[in-house]
Amino acid sequence: MIAILGADGYVGFPLCMHLVNKGFDVVGVDRFLRRQWVAEVGSHSAVPIVSMKERLKAMERHIGKSMCFEYGNLTDYDFVHYVLDKYKPDTIVHLGEQASAPFSMIDVKHAVLTQTNNLVGTLNIIYAIHNLIPHCHLVKLGSMGEYGTPNIDIPEGFLDIEYNGRKDTLPFPKHAFTDWYHWSKVYDSDNMIMACEIWGLRATDIMQGIVYGTRTVEMCDESLNTRFDFDSVFGTALNRFCAQSILNHNLTPYGAGGQRRPFIALADSIQCFLLAIENPAEKGDYRVFNQFDEVYSTIELARQVKAVADKLGFHTEIEHYPNPRVEDEHVQYYNPLHEKLYQLGFHPAHTLQQELEVMLKDLSKYRDRIMAKKDKVSPSIQWRS
Amino acid sequence: MIAILGADGYVGFPLCMHLVNKGFDVVGVDRFLRRQWVAEVGSHSAVPIVSMKERLKAMERHIGKSMCFEYGNLTDYDFVHYVLDKYKPDTIVHLGEQASAPFSMIDVKHAVLTQTNNLVGTLNIIYAIHNLIPHCHLVKLGSMGEYGTPNIDIPEGFLDIEYNGRKDTLPFPKHAFTDWYHWSKVYDSDNMIMACEIWGLRATDIMQGIVYGTRTVEMCDESLNTRFDFDSVFGTALNRFCAQSILNHNLTPYGAGGQRRPFIALADSIQCFLLAIENPAEKGDYRVFNQFDEVYSTIELARQVKAVADKLGFHTEIEHYPNPRVEDEHVQYYNPLHEKLYQLGFHPAHTLQQELEVMLKDLSKYRDRIMAKKDKVSPSIQWRS
Repeated sequence: MIAILGADGYVGFPLCMHLVNKGFDVVGVDRFLRRQWVAEVGSHSAVPIVSMKERLKAMERHIGKSMCFEYGNLTDYDFVHYVLDKYKPDTIVHLGEQASAPFSMIDVKHAVLTQTNNLVGTLNIIYAIHNLIPHCHLVKLGSMGEYGTPNIDIPEGFLDIEYNGRKDTLPFPKHAFTDWYHWSKVYDSDNMIMACEIWGLRATDIMQGIVYGTRTVEMCDESLNTRFDFDSVFGTALNRFCAQSILNHNLTPYGAGGQRRPFIALADSIQCFLLAIENPAEKGDYRVFNQFDEVYSTIELARQVKAVADKLGFHTEIEHYPNPRVEDEHVQYYNPLHEKLYQLGFHPAHTLQQELEVMLKDLSKYRDRIMAKKDKVSPSIQWRS
Repeated sequence: MIAILGADGYVGFPLCMHLVNKGFDVVGVDRFLRRQWVAEVGSHSAVPIVSMKERLKAMERHIGKSMCFEYGNLTDYDFVHYVLDKYKPDTIVHLGEQASAPFSMIDVKHAVLTQTNNLVGTLNIIYAIHNLIPHCHLVKLGSMGEYGTPNIDIPEGFLDIEYNGRKDTLPFPKHAFTDWYHWSKVYDSDNMIMACEIWGLRATDIMQGIVYGTRTVEMCDESLNTRFDFDSVFGTALNRFCAQSILNHNLTPYGAGGQRRPFIALADSIQCFLLAIENPAEKGDYRVFNQFDEVYSTIELARQVKAVADKLGFHTEIEHYPNPRVEDEHVQYYNPLHEKLYQLGFHPAHTLQQELEVMLKDLSKYRDRIMAKKDKVSPSIQWRS
């Protein structure tokens, strides 16, 4: 049995479908906070998504099998205990966190919400595993943004350090992106390190790049589609550029656009999760995967989107936009290493260029939904306000 | 105006008195949670402490001046906003956190309480400074335990790293002691780094060693004494050894006793805080002080206490006790550096040996109070339970 926490999310729902399709027993858990938070900022998913009840029915209909589902909040220990005791999963994939950097920067309330929601959820899961199912493998979604953009290569998790003539191997000295959200992921990682050390937790911490795409093979029906956020709070830069293309608006990278970031296609991300599940960490092992495929700067992204948009007949230009964030927006050194997933057999099957054409075609069907929220694409949250 | 958050605490109250005595305007803030938590684990301070109302009256009587006081919880943003708006302090010394490692390890509820209490309080303070008094200097109590015991020297905050032929200066790669409390201090430090970067907060992060002692010059009356915890949850190893000596019980270092830790006397700690206050960090500067004087292993501590106890006529032996914690209890390399406070003029005026004699004499007056809680000296919380 595999438990997917955050089963209603962008990656969560396609991952559930893929696992069910592969024959795994799956229990999904969600409290639909992402839907609520996107509504709070006045936006919606470009791709319409149906209720979980409808999703489960559609899975039954099209995949021939569905999954169990539990509604509840991971910050409630009694709920987490109840779910883990009921299903006793061998693997937990924890995707159930507040995942937006701008959302965490709205005000003190959202900063506190983000850090407490994420830390308490993960602490509850760690404790429930320890108390109930100590052999369970925890696969936790972190972020490549935990590392920030250091001027040195980024290994997977730990670093050999020599200082004043002595050596030690220590957790990579993380200097996350400057927002409360990315730091919350760092803190989750550290809490997991400790649980592995004192309780022998087996854990895989996924430092995931930015995920893109609108499709996995299981999406054979509109009811099985996953969400696609394009607003400035919950949408990635790539998603915003796609939405802008559909509207024939200019693409607006923040500042100079030199920010280099790691990327991975949705279907490839799911392939990686499957590899982590099928090759669990050893007891007491805190294992880190840098889960991404390609690296692009924001300006390169914008150019790629424009090229595909041009080809499909959309009319758009690139227009630099005042950066609402505090970040280095000029081309910097950025060289994260990623070997462990490839050693387990990861073969990326999607490139950004191929996938962009699929995305723009898919999204063009929902032009009206994007148009209805066009004001939400421009940034409303200033880091320095 | 200086605001002392955690003004009722072991360091907080003597610091308030010292600042008032030096002529500063002081507002103390507390919600007496430490008193409540010590009662929750069934213990009390060996040295009796009076109510804050009585403390303030005694300050007026003996120092000739008192301080303002505000009762409230730092996890309530509205309260923090109210206090900072009312007093507009130039300096905030933030000592108001849950400070016990074993307390944080009781169960999931206490783990969550510790991490949310500490993170939310600090986030609220950071936001209120940013919103109301951006030039205020935040002096925050961290812990030397944030660094853990790496096999390399420990500089003050940041480390120059060379890796794969490239260089960067990054936050020291912290691998805190294995408890939720010490990690919460790491997370506070990281949140402060970010606030300095994006908002130009001026901050001093005090990596403090273990503080010992029962006296400062201002304690000229019993009403002005500070608390002295000796139970296994809130008392330090040194405090427990002192309490055991008074009862003629054996001293019980955990395990082999090789754990090396940094120490500083209470009056010296207060001298350091004064130096930090009088030499504020620059705007946008995140400054780290490693605030300690001497380093001892637990077994060395026990021997020092026994030597002084023997001299004063107490009868005690050293008896190794099964270690309830998960930690390296054998002699390890431990070399934290500490230069910045000395450069500002820090002159430690107290050694452990001198101070122990004062402590044991002071505590012998309260033998009955220690006897009443003698069962609380043995550890009740197991890291691996």
